[in-house]
Amino acid sequence: MYVAKCKQGESFSEGKIIPYGDISISPCSGILKYGQGLFEGLKAHRTEDGRITLFRPDQNALRMQTGADRLCMIPPSVEQFVEAVKQTVPPPGEGALYIRPLLIGSGAVLGMASAPEYTFLIYVSPVGNYHKASSGLNLKVDHKYRRAHTGGAGGVKSCTNYSPVLKSLLEAKSLGFSDVLFLDAATGRNIEELCTCNIFIVKGNIVSTPPTLGTILPGITRKSISELARDFGYEVQERDVSVEELLEAEEVFCTGTAMVVKAVETVTFHDKKIKYMTGEGAMSTKLHLMLTNIQMGVVEDTKGWIVEMDGLLK
Amino acid sequence: MYVAKCKQGESFSEGKIIPYGDISISPCSGILKYGQGLFEGLKAHRTEDGRITLFRPDQNALRMQTGADRLCMIPPSVEQFVEAVKQTVPPPGEGALYIRPLLIGSGAVLGMASAPEYTFLIYVSPVGNYHKASSGLNLKVDHKYRRAHTGGAGGVKSCTNYSPVLKSLLEAKSLGFSDVLFLDAATGRNIEELCTCNIFIVKGNIVSTPPTLGTILPGITRKSISELARDFGYEVQERDVSVEELLEAEEVFCTGTAMVVKAVETVTFHDKKIKYMTGEGAMSTKLHLMLTNIQMGVVEDTKGWIVEMDGLLK
Ligand SMILES: Cc1ncc(COP(=O)(O)O)c(C=O)c1O
Ligand SMILES: Cc1ncc(COP(=O)(O)O)c(C=O)c1O
Repeated sequence: MYVAKCKQGESFSEGKIIPYGDISISPCSGILKYGQGLFEGLKAHRTEDGRITLFRPDQNALRMQTGADRLCMIPPSVEQFVEAVKQTVPPPGEGALYIRPLLIGSGAVLGMASAPEYTFLIYVSPVGNYHKASSGLNLKVDHKYRRAHTGGAGGVKSCTNYSPVLKSLLEAKSLGFSDVLFLDAATGRNIEELCTCNIFIVKGNIVSTPPTLGTILPGITRKSISELARDFGYEVQERDVSVEELLEAEEVFCTGTAMVVKAVETVTFHDKKIKYMTGEGAMSTKLHLMLTNIQMGVVEDTKGWIVEMDGLLK
Repeated sequence: MYVAKCKQGESFSEGKIIPYGDISISPCSGILKYGQGLFEGLKAHRTEDGRITLFRPDQNALRMQTGADRLCMIPPSVEQFVEAVKQTVPPPGEGALYIRPLLIGSGAVLGMASAPEYTFLIYVSPVGNYHKASSGLNLKVDHKYRRAHTGGAGGVKSCTNYSPVLKSLLEAKSLGFSDVLFLDAATGRNIEELCTCNIFIVKGNIVSTPPTLGTILPGITRKSISELARDFGYEVQERDVSVEELLEAEEVFCTGTAMVVKAVETVTFHDKKIKYMTGEGAMSTKLHLMLTNIQMGVVEDTKGWIVEMDGLLK
């Protein structure tokens, strides 16, 4: 894993690659006391012709910078972030590699303050090949828990957005659902996102997804899929999407680095259970294939999304 | 410091006292990735006649249990919590001692899940003597950031409630304010609390404080002060308190373990700045004195709030 440190008022040291293992941290650190922690998630792919590539790592670097600003932390530069990611990717294997950058307030704080030291860390783990389509999601619309509110930190990839919705996820899973769909905290009328991915609905030629105004994570897959959907001739609207519209949609799908695009098979809202189109003819299948083809080098990347690993590990 | 561990499905091991220092934790732990962390804060006092006492430690233990349930963590039992606190309090010195219990998801998680291992840890630090009244707070009502929403985790002492409001606090401090007063996320019309303490307003014989319905931390000082205010003959109302009422109050004060009771000198709302009664004649001064007198053993504890340190360290 890669580790670099930075003191308040300074910039990040050159990182070191060390063996993966526990890290040492003050019991009084900003992360443990005040939740000063951000993480990222991106993938390295082995292309069909054997190259190793990263998918839009600059976007993860930028998102970490936005998050750091929101939580009063010091982030690494985009260059250092991307360089560090490259250093942590091991020689090619099968499937993809999940890369986990972490930025934490590691220095000790007494009163409520920004931590005096930050640690930027990256570790990796292999993940299965998502190239083949997988079965659809069965979502439960949550009526009790809300993920984020305007004026909060729901729009950044902060650790503070996850433990508060864990209970909702575990309750839904115990009822046989695959994930939870959260509604907005202000009105409870519009859909927002799942625990760890964004959502789209399709009706006719229009693809709609909730806007990223601070309560939803601006997913990099979301952004990429919106662009590909436009290329396919769909109209993509970023706007409030009500539960009613969700229930009347023809197709619903989710996006995220881990699953790329995943069809939603059913949505359960109170005692209503709606079934959506999935499988071969579905738009989600088409989009999933297109994006994974770009990632795997099967289709040419005309968008500049793919970053090559400097030949180093070819 | 005191450290005990617990695996999913088991209960906490007997803790060990070890020298204060960094702890070792997985980069993939529940706390670092998903913000699975709770903390507590309580004080040990050296009474006038030399005994060492704790103030309502069972309440902190119970609050940690509520928080653990909310964040799907395993908490220590009330007995183990109180016993552990007693073990960490060193021989008597001057002033008070601040005791910091911490419960974190220390086990590694891959997908979003409850951590497979929890660490319960307590460390202490000396704090000044708050027995004497200190100068009042100058608060800024925040219009941009919100602390918590219904259906979130704002009602528990989770690390996830602090980093999202740090920016608000630092902005206010840079403008010369002492702290920030947050409004409710739903309407923005009612007051909630500060970054780390609860708020009360006084008008005539009525003392009002926002209700703890999941967006406000149920402060132990808040609860104790409500009871003492009733003893003094005030009517205490737990209910929504609007900004208008705040601006028309005669006196405003805050409560928390660290400062006990602290008068608010001014509140700034947009370009309005209101001054409140502070000093000798203020209710906050009376309540501060009463509670610290109970804590210091000057006044008899008729409420069973004081827990003695088993003679051990007398
Ligand atoms: C809350 C949340 N929403 C959406 C996403 C999807 O974002 P991305 O497409 O960048 O992986 C993630 C995962 O990163 C997430 O944690
Ligand atoms: C958000 C918040 N509100 C209120 C309080 C006051 O609670 P207590 O009186 O139990 O210290 C604290 C501090 O513990 C806090 O962090």
